[in-house]
Amino acid sequence: MPRHQPIAVFDSGLGGLTVVRALRELLPHESIIYLGDTARVPYGTKSPQTVLRFTRECLRFLGTLDPKLMVVACNTASALALPHMQGEWPVPVVGVLEPGARAAVAAAHARGVRQVGLIATEATVNSLAYPQAIARLDPRMQVMQRACPLLVPMIEEGRLDTDPIVGLVLREYLQPFSAMHLAAIILGCTHYPMLTGALGRLLGPNVALVDSAQETARQVARELAELGQLAPTHDDESGSLTCYVTDQGQRFGLLATRFLGQPVGQPVWVAPETLEQAGVI
Amino acid sequence: MPRHQPIAVFDSGLGGLTVVRALRELLPHESIIYLGDTARVPYGTKSPQTVLRFTRECLRFLGTLDPKLMVVACNTASALALPHMQGEWPVPVVGVLEPGARAAVAAAHARGVRQVGLIATEATVNSLAYPQAIARLDPRMQVMQRACPLLVPMIEEGRLDTDPIVGLVLREYLQPFSAMHLAAIILGCTHYPMLTGALGRLLGPNVALVDSAQETARQVARELAELGQLAPTHDDESGSLTCYVTDQGQRFGLLATRFLGQPVGQPVWVAPETLEQAGVI
Repeated sequence: MPRHQPIAVFDSGLGGLTVVRALRELLPHESIIYLGDTARVPYGTKSPQTVLRFTRECLRFLGTLDPKLMVVACNTASALALPHMQGEWPVPVVGVLEPGARAAVAAAHARGVRQVGLIATEATVNSLAYPQAIARLDPRMQVMQRACPLLVPMIEEGRLDTDPIVGLVLREYLQPFSAMHLAAIILGCTHYPMLTGALGRLLGPNVALVDSAQETARQVARELAELGQLAPTHDDESGSLTCYVTDQGQRFGLLATRFLGQPVGQPVWVAPETLEQAGVI
Repeated sequence: MPRHQPIAVFDSGLGGLTVVRALRELLPHESIIYLGDTARVPYGTKSPQTVLRFTRECLRFLGTLDPKLMVVACNTASALALPHMQGEWPVPVVGVLEPGARAAVAAAHARGVRQVGLIATEATVNSLAYPQAIARLDPRMQVMQRACPLLVPMIEEGRLDTDPIVGLVLREYLQPFSAMHLAAIILGCTHYPMLTGALGRLLGPNVALVDSAQETARQVARELAELGQLAPTHDDESGSLTCYVTDQGQRFGLLATRFLGQPVGQPVWVAPETLEQAGVI
């Protein structure tokens, strides 16, 4: 057990490590525990009921590790399950959706423009959670959203933003946005920041790319500061990172390194039974 | 309960309905029960341990419905779990791998060629199950295999084999085969028969496309005939089809129709708890 209570980060797979990366850059003294539900990934093609059930099971597992704050670092789970989760825990539960929505609205206000775009999974788009969150912040905003189901498998296959297939797919997905005067586009999936190069080239310099990982890390820092629960920063030691996964496959090392931006130690395998028992209501 | 014992068909998702389609064409009087583990799909990116566990749970559920034969209509599960499953049941358990391997070897023998290709998921390729099955049939055969992780998501997105992105992706995946003198290529995933048009154009008329669904249906017919368990064919009534799924999402109707080639009734949702209880050993 770490000396200080850890921050718990949950994702359907390993893309949430982009949020861990942002957290470690902003809050290097915090210890982090991460759970990737790699046996049941992806969530982005599944029904709200299933996403809610899996998310609840995963948070219950992380809850047994006594975190001071939980991050749902998965856009699909944030869109479909977060409102149900926030009342179930005595600690703050932060999603990636609200921080991304806030940053997009701020970018629009700064530019005097009312149109923002969203690219995300099918389930996130169908949930309408982003347009609703943005409307709560500013009802005059117009949101155009597009499901991009090939982006996650392309990124997981190791395709970079210079790959010709990535270019062709992105041009097709972004085509409907070309008629709009966008202030910003929200990268509504933790994988998508891996494609910022290609997205930036296609959208041009006038469209801000909103990376939820960065925004979420800032939100976590604010919430912990308000609660007086930031880890002490006077010692030199960095916080630890412990990863848990439900499927311990060969893909972990490669994908985790890619999303975290540095090598990561072997993960701890959580027997699916453990989660399922945690999920029994 | 049908008048005759049904054939049970299991797949990680809905692609196995291509096998159901072939079964219904060949054996129209048979009743079929189908289980798609749509809450945990795909299996093709996951570890052998997880695939074995999920497959065992699903077959145990289907076993409670008293089938006369079970089909593992998923190449990944056939490659990783079938050898473990066949001893666990008093009824025959047929996979899609052996029928495909046999058809590829037959095509090679007919053409006097020793090279065959395989396109499949990452887990199927890593398992080496196809090269091993082919070597058991004819150790002189050379098998070149290639994982094609984008094909399933492209097909599930509704892209047809005339889509320019499909063409570009297939050209890349098939490029390593161009130096070989292939007799046949095994479509080692139940989704891939949806792309036979593009595959045929790229590979040319001298490469046989081995569709495991067709081969598996013939194998099922042979096994039931040997056991004297074919459904009576003297009445006019067709067999029934009942689909069970672990995630009842919006995608079912669209995808199931695409793979089955005709509309399909609403599926029965199986609570994941039911499967998990079945999986406790």
